[in-house]
Amino acid sequence: MKVLVVGSVAYDDVETFAGSVRRVLGGSATFFSMASSLFAPTQIVAVVGDDFDASDLDRITVRGVDTGGVARAPGATFRWGGRYDPQFRSRETLFTELNVFAQFDPQLPVAYRESAVVFLANIHPTLQLSVLDQARRPKIVACDTMNFWIHGEPAALKAVLRRVDILFVNDEEALALTGEANMLHAARCIRAMGPATVVIKRGEHGAWLFHGDHITVVPAVPLATVVDPTGAGDTFAGGFMGFIAHALERGSILDGALYAQAMVAGTLTASFAVEGFSIDAIEAANIDRLTERHARLCAAMAPRDLPW
Amino acid sequence: MKVLVVGSVAYDDVETFAGSVRRVLGGSATFFSMASSLFAPTQIVAVVGDDFDASDLDRITVRGVDTGGVARAPGATFRWGGRYDPQFRSRETLFTELNVFAQFDPQLPVAYRESAVVFLANIHPTLQLSVLDQARRPKIVACDTMNFWIHGEPAALKAVLRRVDILFVNDEEALALTGEANMLHAARCIRAMGPATVVIKRGEHGAWLFHGDHITVVPAVPLATVVDPTGAGDTFAGGFMGFIAHALERGSILDGALYAQAMVAGTLTASFAVEGFSIDAIEAANIDRLTERHARLCAAMAPRDLPW
Repeated sequence: MKVLVVGSVAYDDVETFAGSVRRVLGGSATFFSMASSLFAPTQIVAVVGDDFDASDLDRITVRGVDTGGVARAPGATFRWGGRYDPQFRSRETLFTELNVFAQFDPQLPVAYRESAVVFLANIHPTLQLSVLDQARRPKIVACDTMNFWIHGEPAALKAVLRRVDILFVNDEEALALTGEANMLHAARCIRAMGPATVVIKRGEHGAWLFHGDHITVVPAVPLATVVDPTGAGDTFAGGFMGFIAHALERGSILDGALYAQAMVAGTLTASFAVEGFSIDAIEAANIDRLTERHARLCAAMAPRDLPW
Repeated sequence: MKVLVVGSVAYDDVETFAGSVRRVLGGSATFFSMASSLFAPTQIVAVVGDDFDASDLDRITVRGVDTGGVARAPGATFRWGGRYDPQFRSRETLFTELNVFAQFDPQLPVAYRESAVVFLANIHPTLQLSVLDQARRPKIVACDTMNFWIHGEPAALKAVLRRVDILFVNDEEALALTGEANMLHAARCIRAMGPATVVIKRGEHGAWLFHGDHITVVPAVPLATVVDPTGAGDTFAGGFMGFIAHALERGSILDGALYAQAMVAGTLTASFAVEGFSIDAIEAANIDRLTERHARLCAAMAPRDLPW
């Protein structure tokens, strides 16, 4: 099954405890596709400016990602700059230059409209709706969002939520979206808005899955080296959705057990993203290295036997 | 095996999203002993003022805790007041009145000096050393501390660390104590200071255990009702150390597998503490209810099978 992602391809400036980089490849669709393509064929719809280096697109294409849906427009590529505190607890946005992304009007190539697995990365909810109108009978649709849309475009965002199966958000966004103070209440409230499944991304603390009456808690892989968390959430979603596409391809049923496995796939994939700037570390990931890391994660997991 | 805890018994004023209470029973030794006594006989050394209600001590004694080591001194009982933000992400100390606690000089009754399991709650490191000097050949010693001592009494604290087997700290304290930005590096650094085992308490995100070359990550029990996190860390330590005493009693070996089980015992016990103000909820916990909650925690744990 094919995965379609619609989002941003960007150039980022990032400062962290580990160093700083300028004009490195970033963007939600970039990170997502680098992750999902580990598991399933992936198609990407985005826009870049005429300053965009062909060699950067090659880094995505060489992974097997179909970048035919990346449009080139006159002007500069979307740019974002951010700085993280030494413990990666918060980040400060230094600048956001939308550039060609300001006029982004995602058009799905005909060959992309039949994708079974669709991910609407964090873009304007109206654009997310436009993508949904162009997609034909996807088996599963997920979206991401952010506080900017939660507060600025609540009606359009709610229209999106009525049409998606899974929402990926971080804990702060989940609380902001619902006005709740407790994550279990927030998840229940989000599920009442539409998505049957809610994934709360908690950074170094892992992620929580809400599906049916069930919660699954997956810890992040403990890492001694964290260089740059930029894109970790999109990488998580890419690993999750790519794994789902892979599992559907081999005949799996979309149920809670499959989603719980997808949480592990997303966790393992995201653990690579943070070990380098840009896509440097996720670029070096492959199924063998994910398998090794799975063993490390399992070794760190709490015992299940009753202790008394 | 018996557990000895030396720490505070206090009256707290607490304001949370769920309400506010005044002059309720609190203190590190209180929470710890309410938890450890679920698993093993527990002895408590603390001081209260002449304003202390006998009925409050009864709430601890009725649990089977030996409160013969609680001294009564002229003056008021230690008082602390705090306010939590609605999501329990931070707390503001409104006041700290040491009162009789300012002259606390812990004296171990003779019958307490043979305790096999010793917990030095968060008190002045010089007092923690004094307790260690009075204890005779404990099998295992753990301590807690806080930023106030890390910054204010580094030499005395380091003398304590050289003599304990386990340090319980939260993530912020672990980073402050070591100057590290990464938790794995911080834990390694703490272990070089003395404790062979380090437990990092992470609140709603659970806890991490470092023992040998091994990490164990235990998620917190997902809770729909959180009333007051005060004392959760001491309750966690109480469940952990009480379980260790129980396990040693039945002949278990002190190894990584036992510590990993103790992490689960601490997690389950702490999950009760936060569901009420003061000791209200932990007071209602018992082994049957812990067992039920263990099933809930296991149901929420990530699957271990390789997802692909």
